Amino acid sequence: MPEQTIREDEDVYALGSGLVDAVLAAVEEGSQSALLLLFENLHEADIADLLEQIGKDDRRRLVRLWGDHVDGEVLSELEEGVRDEILADTPDEVLAEVFKDLDTDDVVYLVEDLDTPQQDALLGSLDDADRVAVEQSLQYEDDTAGRLMQREMVLAPNHWTVGDAIDFMRASEDLPQDFYDVIVIDPAMHPVGSVPLSRIMGAAREVSLMDLAHEDFRVIPVDQSEEDVAYAFNQYHMVSAPVVEASGRLVGVITIDDAMEILEDQAEEDMNLLAGLIDEDLSSRVWKTMRSRFPWLAVNLFTSVLASIVIAQFTSTIEAIVALAVLLPIVASMGGNAGTQTLTVSVRALATRDLTPANASRIVLREFLVGAANGIVFAVIIGGVGFLWYDSVMLGVVLGLAMIGNMLVAGMAGILIPIGLDKLGADPALASGVFVTTVTDIVGFFAFLGLASAMLL
Amino acid sequence: MPEQTIREDEDVYALGSGLVDAVLAAVEEGSQSALLLLFENLHEADIADLLEQIGKDDRRRLVRLWGDHVDGEVLSELEEGVRDEILADTPDEVLAEVFKDLDTDDVVYLVEDLDTPQQDALLGSLDDADRVAVEQSLQYEDDTAGRLMQREMVLAPNHWTVGDAIDFMRASEDLPQDFYDVIVIDPAMHPVGSVPLSRIMGAAREVSLMDLAHEDFRVIPVDQSEEDVAYAFNQYHMVSAPVVEASGRLVGVITIDDAMEILEDQAEEDMNLLAGLIDEDLSSRVWKTMRSRFPWLAVNLFTSVLASIVIAQFTSTIEAIVALAVLLPIVASMGGNAGTQTLTVSVRALATRDLTPANASRIVLREFLVGAANGIVFAVIIGGVGFLWYDSVMLGVVLGLAMIGNMLVAGMAGILIPIGLDKLGADPALASGVFVTTVTDIVGFFAFLGLASAMLL
Repeated sequence: MPEQTIREDEDVYALGSGLVDAVLAAVEEGSQSALLLLFENLHEADIADLLEQIGKDDRRRLVRLWGDHVDGEVLSELEEGVRDEILADTPDEVLAEVFKDLDTDDVVYLVEDLDTPQQDALLGSLDDADRVAVEQSLQYEDDTAGRLMQREMVLAPNHWTVGDAIDFMRASEDLPQDFYDVIVIDPAMHPVGSVPLSRIMGAAREVSLMDLAHEDFRVIPVDQSEEDVAYAFNQYHMVSAPVVEASGRLVGVITIDDAMEILEDQAEEDMNLLAGLIDEDLSSRVWKTMRSRFPWLAVNLFTSVLASIVIAQFTSTIEAIVALAVLLPIVASMGGNAGTQTLTVSVRALATRDLTPANASRIVLREFLVGAANGIVFAVIIGGVGFLWYDSVMLGVVLGLAMIGNMLVAGMAGILIPIGLDKLGADPALASGVFVTTVTDIVGFFAFLGLASAMLL
Repeated sequence: MPEQTIREDEDVYALGSGLVDAVLAAVEEGSQSALLLLFENLHEADIADLLEQIGKDDRRRLVRLWGDHVDGEVLSELEEGVRDEILADTPDEVLAEVFKDLDTDDVVYLVEDLDTPQQDALLGSLDDADRVAVEQSLQYEDDTAGRLMQREMVLAPNHWTVGDAIDFMRASEDLPQDFYDVIVIDPAMHPVGSVPLSRIMGAAREVSLMDLAHEDFRVIPVDQSEEDVAYAFNQYHMVSAPVVEASGRLVGVITIDDAMEILEDQAEEDMNLLAGLIDEDLSSRVWKTMRSRFPWLAVNLFTSVLASIVIAQFTSTIEAIVALAVLLPIVASMGGNAGTQTLTVSVRALATRDLTPANASRIVLREFLVGAANGIVFAVIIGGVGFLWYDSVMLGVVLGLAMIGNMLVAGMAGILIPIGLDKLGADPALASGVFVTTVTDIVGFFAFLGLASAMLL
């Protein structure tokens, strides 16, 4: 039974509640050794998840018990809210010690939202090269390649052979923890190629490094948005990429694990924006969650009042035929859903660069035809329902016509609104949902009640 | 201006319409050399995108012109619909030739949906080892690790040193195109560790391979769902992982690029399911698109008729106070949106294993409090609007009370429905949207009209 398999699978990587209970018991007893023993067998990312999943009070007690065994890798896996909470609860001396073992990109993530005095104090304890690297990263805009990159990388001059590179690496005391490519640079520190370790492994010592370089070599501008970075890694199957300044000078390297996380975050952000959620995550507290959801609900209140005003124009029609009030939500709801379907596809296609000027007009035409076709089918069904329910052919006709009109408008709004937002330079997911359902509500109410006034009275 | 930067960035990796036009012009002229020249500078993934973006007729002519220069890497980047179209348009002799240069996982993707005779014919041209590998992969369920894995990998016996591994790789004629780890196996072909190439590079020849193995070594069961595979890669920052049979025997390896693509697809699938889209992509034709959207619209029609039946019970109330018909959609719309917000967060959190039995009750409580808090705030606002609009305090009170009730129910439905679907072994995103808005529509209409009957008549 495939369902069985899937269900079993779903729990493979989830934290067992037995484990969480054991950790909370250790915290309850105040037994640091029990806590460390439990953590020893957990991956840092799982410990971070555990910290996110327990309540705030438990978390605070756990962090206190953890004491100076706190793990920097775990901190760098945390989502921002919990990260800031734990950073605030941990003494600066402990943090300073913890930072020393981290890659610079992880340090950047940990300190980027701290206030300047604390940031300076913590960075002061790093060795000079790392401190300068972190400070430079922090000077780039939030959510850019400059913030994602790390300084730990392996460089090779462009005249080196495989043998030179191997000898250099073998002699080097502090190679990065994990790396996949050697970056080849010219004397001006411009990256000119990148050589996968797997090719170096397979080649003879005398082969020139540049002969083994990736055929498809790409550099990332330091001010590129992290969204574009993630797109490039996924599209071009990159595992690491050099980051360059405007002058072309190498400043760092981005690795696949960071890109993968951004890719995941971006998809989540689009999903959230479509639903009208701003900057929310699961561990947000009540007050933050409320604030995250309030703005869109407020806009929705405003637009639903607008839709009500449309209905109010037809008060006398509804007084004459109260069946209209009963059937009204059907037209609006069908339009809203058809619009949301088109919208979801369009927003996603814009994010993945699948919807471009080259095919936009063909996709718009397709949405028109799909809207018309589904509109006609559902018009027949709902027209029949209206006729049977209220025994009026004309009521059925009005309902059907309003349905066709609204489904057409829904399809057009669902694709043209995100394309329009994109052209204006806004995120197409941003509040598209409000606009589309406003359009379908207003058009639906107006079409149905307007036709009813004209044809039934 | 950051907006400026972002806008410029957004076009970095998009296909220019100039390029698409040039390709179409080459096809129009029937100039194969012009086509090949244009393709020469494009990454395979970009050529695949271009093929997806042009119309079906242009695509067919392009593939014919491309002839036996058709590129297997490009085909393996295509989405399923376009892949199958092009496979059908390309002669089997050409495909057989193309397959010879591909990794086995790409061959599996290309042939998995072909009918058995064509599959056999194409696989017959592969060399024996590859053919057996592909045939074995095809025996595993769709969407499992067995389908994702490739057979190209580098193995080392567990008694080898760094020097042994390096000598072996240097002597080997057909190393995989890209690999990141050497998989260490015991004599029974069970993987016992994996060693990053970067550590081999930095170590002395006499060091034992196993001393350099990943501290955190994970194997993937061959029947694990691809969703879980992608989760593991992202959670544990893996770049490759050995795949094992139930006996523990090594059967293949999965690499990060495949996992990243699945991760992206899964997020898209959740987004689509929430909007009621089944198996749709942007290059789907009108008929397929219509079928993809029809089922959920049909369910929505049914549930909106249910909601209408609720309204119909209050026909006499609406006849007495027609303002109710005007204000009705506001309560339902606010509930629907609040429910969708909670739903989106819950579905995502279940997918990322952030919502677990360990924290479910706390999150449910949070949703209750957020629903209550936002409900009260919007109740005051909308109560005021109702009062000012219709000059009736009691109408305002009824509106406000209905709003609080519906927002509470929305929050609860938005989290309990996906948790319930998950417990039943269904995808929590599946049709959750329908259920939640059905609940909020029905509760909203019932609360508002019921309270109005009780308090206003």
